[in-house]
Amino acid sequence: MKIGIIGLGYWGPNLVRNFLSQNLVEKVYGCDMNEDRLMFVKSRYPSVELLKNYNELLEKDIDAVAIATPVNTHYKLALQALNAGKHIWLEKPFTSTTVQAKELIELADSKNLKIFVDHTFLYTGAVRKMKDLVSNGELGDIIYFDSVRVNLGLFQHDVNVIWDLAPHDLSIMNYLIPDKKVTAVTACGISNYNEIENLAQLSLHFENSSCFAHFHVNWTSPVKIRKMIIAGKEKMLVFDDMENSEKIKIYNSGVDITTTEGIHNALVQYRIGDMYSPKIEQTEALSLAAREFITSILEDRKPLTSGEEGLEVVKILEASDKSIKNRGLLIEFEQSFEKFYYHSVLPFQKVG
Amino acid sequence: MKIGIIGLGYWGPNLVRNFLSQNLVEKVYGCDMNEDRLMFVKSRYPSVELLKNYNELLEKDIDAVAIATPVNTHYKLALQALNAGKHIWLEKPFTSTTVQAKELIELADSKNLKIFVDHTFLYTGAVRKMKDLVSNGELGDIIYFDSVRVNLGLFQHDVNVIWDLAPHDLSIMNYLIPDKKVTAVTACGISNYNEIENLAQLSLHFENSSCFAHFHVNWTSPVKIRKMIIAGKEKMLVFDDMENSEKIKIYNSGVDITTTEGIHNALVQYRIGDMYSPKIEQTEALSLAAREFITSILEDRKPLTSGEEGLEVVKILEASDKSIKNRGLLIEFEQSFEKFYYHSVLPFQKVG
Amino acid sequence: MKIGIIGLGYWGPNLVRNFLSQNLVEKVYGCDMNEDRLMFVKSRYPSVELLKNYNELLEKDIDAVAIATPVNTHYKLALQALNAGKHIWLEKPFTSTTVQAKELIELADSKNLKIFVDHTFLYTGAVRKMKDLVSNGELGDIIYFDSVRVNLGLFQHDVNVIWDLAPHDLSIMNYLIPDKKVTAVTACGISNYNEIENLAQLSLHFENSSCFAHFHVNWTSPVKIRKMIIAGKEKMLVFDDMENSEKIKIYNSGVDITTTEGIHNALVQYRIGDMYSPKIEQTEALSLAAREFITSILEDRKPLTSGEEGLEVVKILEASDKSIKNRGLLIEFEQSFEKFYYHSVLPFQKVG
Amino acid sequence: MKIGIIGLGYWGPNLVRNFLSQNLVEKVYGCDMNEDRLMFVKSRYPSVELLKNYNELLEKDIDAVAIATPVNTHYKLALQALNAGKHIWLEKPFTSTTVQAKELIELADSKNLKIFVDHTFLYTGAVRKMKDLVSNGELGDIIYFDSVRVNLGLFQHDVNVIWDLAPHDLSIMNYLIPDKKVTAVTACGISNYNEIENLAQLSLHFENSSCFAHFHVNWTSPVKIRKMIIAGKEKMLVFDDMENSEKIKIYNSGVDITTTEGIHNALVQYRIGDMYSPKIEQTEALSLAAREFITSILEDRKPLTSGEEGLEVVKILEASDKSIKNRGLLIEFEQSFEKFYYHSVLPFQKVG
Repeated sequence: MKIGIIGLGYWGPNLVRNFLSQNLVEKVYGCDMNEDRLMFVKSRYPSVELLKNYNELLEKDIDAVAIATPVNTHYKLALQALNAGKHIWLEKPFTSTTVQAKELIELADSKNLKIFVDHTFLYTGAVRKMKDLVSNGELGDIIYFDSVRVNLGLFQHDVNVIWDLAPHDLSIMNYLIPDKKVTAVTACGISNYNEIENLAQLSLHFENSSCFAHFHVNWTSPVKIRKMIIAGKEKMLVFDDMENSEKIKIYNSGVDITTTEGIHNALVQYRIGDMYSPKIEQTEALSLAAREFITSILEDRKPLTSGEEGLEVVKILEASDKSIKNRGLLIEFEQSFEKFYYHSVLPFQKVG
Repeated sequence: MKIGIIGLGYWGPNLVRNFLSQNLVEKVYGCDMNEDRLMFVKSRYPSVELLKNYNELLEKDIDAVAIATPVNTHYKLALQALNAGKHIWLEKPFTSTTVQAKELIELADSKNLKIFVDHTFLYTGAVRKMKDLVSNGELGDIIYFDSVRVNLGLFQHDVNVIWDLAPHDLSIMNYLIPDKKVTAVTACGISNYNEIENLAQLSLHFENSSCFAHFHVNWTSPVKIRKMIIAGKEKMLVFDDMENSEKIKIYNSGVDITTTEGIHNALVQYRIGDMYSPKIEQTEALSLAAREFITSILEDRKPLTSGEEGLEVVKILEASDKSIKNRGLLIEFEQSFEKFYYHSVLPFQKVG
Repeated sequence: MKIGIIGLGYWGPNLVRNFLSQNLVEKVYGCDMNEDRLMFVKSRYPSVELLKNYNELLEKDIDAVAIATPVNTHYKLALQALNAGKHIWLEKPFTSTTVQAKELIELADSKNLKIFVDHTFLYTGAVRKMKDLVSNGELGDIIYFDSVRVNLGLFQHDVNVIWDLAPHDLSIMNYLIPDKKVTAVTACGISNYNEIENLAQLSLHFENSSCFAHFHVNWTSPVKIRKMIIAGKEKMLVFDDMENSEKIKIYNSGVDITTTEGIHNALVQYRIGDMYSPKIEQTEALSLAAREFITSILEDRKPLTSGEEGLEVVKILEASDKSIKNRGLLIEFEQSFEKFYYHSVLPFQKVG
Repeated sequence: MKIGIIGLGYWGPNLVRNFLSQNLVEKVYGCDMNEDRLMFVKSRYPSVELLKNYNELLEKDIDAVAIATPVNTHYKLALQALNAGKHIWLEKPFTSTTVQAKELIELADSKNLKIFVDHTFLYTGAVRKMKDLVSNGELGDIIYFDSVRVNLGLFQHDVNVIWDLAPHDLSIMNYLIPDKKVTAVTACGISNYNEIENLAQLSLHFENSSCFAHFHVNWTSPVKIRKMIIAGKEKMLVFDDMENSEKIKIYNSGVDITTTEGIHNALVQYRIGDMYSPKIEQTEALSLAAREFITSILEDRKPLTSGEEGLEVVKILEASDKSIKNRGLLIEFEQSFEKFYYHSVLPFQKVG
């Protein structure tokens, strides 16, 4: 298999390194308009063939293209690649709009090409362990999902902090509780330095009213926090990605209800039990992701993080924009998803 | 000075102990309908005179009444006390509605009696240090206030988690940034066990659009977190009340803007500097609070945490109820506060 | 039962409070030469009868005496109490020398009186849980015991930091691994401010050469650390008393040996597994200790922490003095304990 | 400059990467007897010329040799390199004995060749900041140095845990307090799995009796701890290398003495003040170390971590062996260092 990587900025070189180390990959091409980035990759990975022009890359005898450029270029570059008959790998978030996402998915399907969206977290040992725990019912029915992802971080110039940081947590949530349908989104935040929100709060309402999700993302926190609480009726899980070890802790804690005389007299009692922290596999997530992409092509099946998964995340991001521009207005998804996304295209995100 | 304490449940005995140890207090009375609680206080503090009937307490030769009963009884008990010519101390939150709060304030003013609302946190060494730091401009202009107060805690039966936990953080915020006017409130949350929210997210918008506040409160978290980030343009402060030492950390960190060619090209850069953690005084907060109450009476002046401060908190709590019942509807305060609160009485909080 | 408490300084009032709340105790006396301390206890616990003279206390109709005075007075006060026919409770450490300890034990035995040494830690939920875990073999054979107990603390004027802090850890160790016999002691440290060591390192060698123990105690550490690692061949336990929750963690980690071709080629591999943190009971340790003292008297049996347990700790403390004065000289215990302690009386600890 | 690296196991490839990225290095050779390691380096760093034979390496036109092999081979390989006229870089610890170290230093001096011992920690931002703080007197006179370096780690086959882990802390200590002379060493520990100690306690006595140092090293701890306390008379410093940020904290805490009536009545009081955590530079330590090696050659001067620094560490390691084999026997250094090391050669460490 031969792969071309477009965009050799911050993340691209990691893709180069990873695809180089895959047994099934025989040749890696790199492409960037910036001469310096080409030089940088050349010095580190002399075996990579480098080009400045994307069209030339697409003319090469390659099977797939990995796109690691700013979000607002994803749609156009992906469209070209699919039209040139290449499978595509896209960094998160998938696209700038649900319309774009839908179109790419349909095009890929019609040409039997694969779309892989790099929700890398789903390939970490920690999230795979969490998936096991939620799937086998150990936590019981999930009642809330609460995530904090804050630090003093690099500002993005094209997207706000929700588009930058929340895709990680949204993809994890969708992976863990695929059956819980999000019905409405509300978001608020603040732009202290330019027109782009640097701090935001995102809340999700679900079809099942006894589930709730909240995401706090912030580029302007003096301390780095990566903490997620997933509460089930039986047990509660805390995922702290800043811990060197013991990233996941499962608390045999919760709330028990003793109904005595009708709901109004229900006695709520809390229960505190043991905690345990399972061992987590240490394999590099990006390497597993690359393998999944390659094998999904070879086995002709959808990858774990396909365009559909990417679309689910974009749907929420897009609604969060609508809400945040209206100071927390509740954005409800229509029953039929198709209807929703045609209504929801935001003008400033249109692709020229 | 002689003081009567009504409500000897969880918190009342602490008031008994504290008032007993004040030099200026010569006699303490205790009052509760529950015989067991009277016995409990009797065994611990034999010098306290105990009564079962509130009316009898008010007939005693006392200067002040401290009310440590459920919120929905505050208004009625306070009204009686003021009408009997007693100064009053009320546990937080002050009242169930802004109407009640306003009425009590007016009544007390007309009789030259003092209202003290027990926002105890304002008397801790940590918050007083924070007040110093914000007041002397060390942090620069405050851009956001972010608070998390969660644990696996005792459910209240009459109020939701916002009314129970947020008053602490709201009173701290109002104390630290009294000039920043809150203009709108949005809240959402979930009730997993009865009709009362056990987890909630509260966001505040300010007149100055470059300030924002968020409060996360939760009775159903497996871990206990008490963390507050107060970000200024110059420095940022983290208050972690779960730390045994180093509760306050000040980070010489922030974001610098280099405008090059107009706002759209503004370059946002982050800056990381030293951190320091100031020494904090260890005096018991409740003892300082009791002293402030007593001296405010003796000096005939408003206490630091008067009815007005209590009202400011109730105003936000009341609006949060309106918002949460409407899935995050933005509740805007009208220009004139008087107008607002007459409109905003919620039916279920009416006092019989 | 009636109890007299001698020494109402820092710890004595806690004994007063605890014995007052025991159902089986009908009367508590307090005794201190210092008028201020008597006043202090009077104001808090009016029901306690107070005396200045120890001889008068012994003449009262009491069953037991609790001694909470400096260590160098323990022997003399205990001797008087036993001779007056009273059961005794002594704060840790039991006595200043093993000779004293042995004499008190023999005297008490001859008069069928109980000696209780207040190794309070053994009554905490954490240590009782640790005892369960070690006893039921969950950790496997214990290979080392490593303890750190440091902080910026109050200097004692009569004893060094080992005598002040190590008894806690030594009593825990003796409780957990009663079958492992300590054969030798080595200690070194430093006296930075007077002639009394403020920092010390204490190492214990065992009869079984595959066990080892180390204790680091320090009054001059800028940070407070209370951490104990107990490593077994199967699992390893960490007890961190500064944690608000999760004080005990059990790691399914260890080292496995694969002998291939003789001992010299043994392959040492490490194993990392899950961790869990058991729920710990919250009962107040001092209350359980008081109950154990009382019931041991009523049931006419040795208490859990009897004179013998106290003696085992004093034996090590005494040897540590010998070692530290000789810059870490190895002090070996003789086979027969009786022989050892007659040899080991240190001149400066003799009781006049 | 051209450099050859011998030993491409765990650490060697890091040296390859670092020397490759130095501007002043034009050619890097790699050498290892193991074909697999040569292949590994070939695949990652294709520009490196690889050899299996050390003698061939020495015949190449190279300026320096970096030795990253087991300690017991250091002396022989270094001797060959110096005799071939090459500057040498040695991984820590420098040699197996002080005799070897002294001989290499003398040989290098006679040929005007440089010896660089890779005490990498001295090139980290954290230790350089600590050096500033100690040198400028901010901490005051140092009274103790206490270090814990424990984890569940890879067992070495040729040296015990002191030789493996303590060189880091000993080199830091020597760097920070070069004027405090170590006069005696005592060590004890345990070998649970073979004849090599896996846990050890090392104490150092100084010429100045008011200074003390202790090192706790352990390959068999379930938790990873990297914590160092450096206490001065004025302030105290804690270096916690497991912290992601705030690795260094300086406490304005200490102990004050108020002499009232002679030393016996000296009043010891503790003082707690502010804490601060300075910003630390993030440059990679190994890169700075490589630069120091190269520039020391070009400028014809001793590097910061020369053979002499390496010898000081080996001196203590060697004495620790003597002590640990004798259950903590105090090993005193003789006044004249030359005398000491001739006496102290341990039979099993002799080089054939």
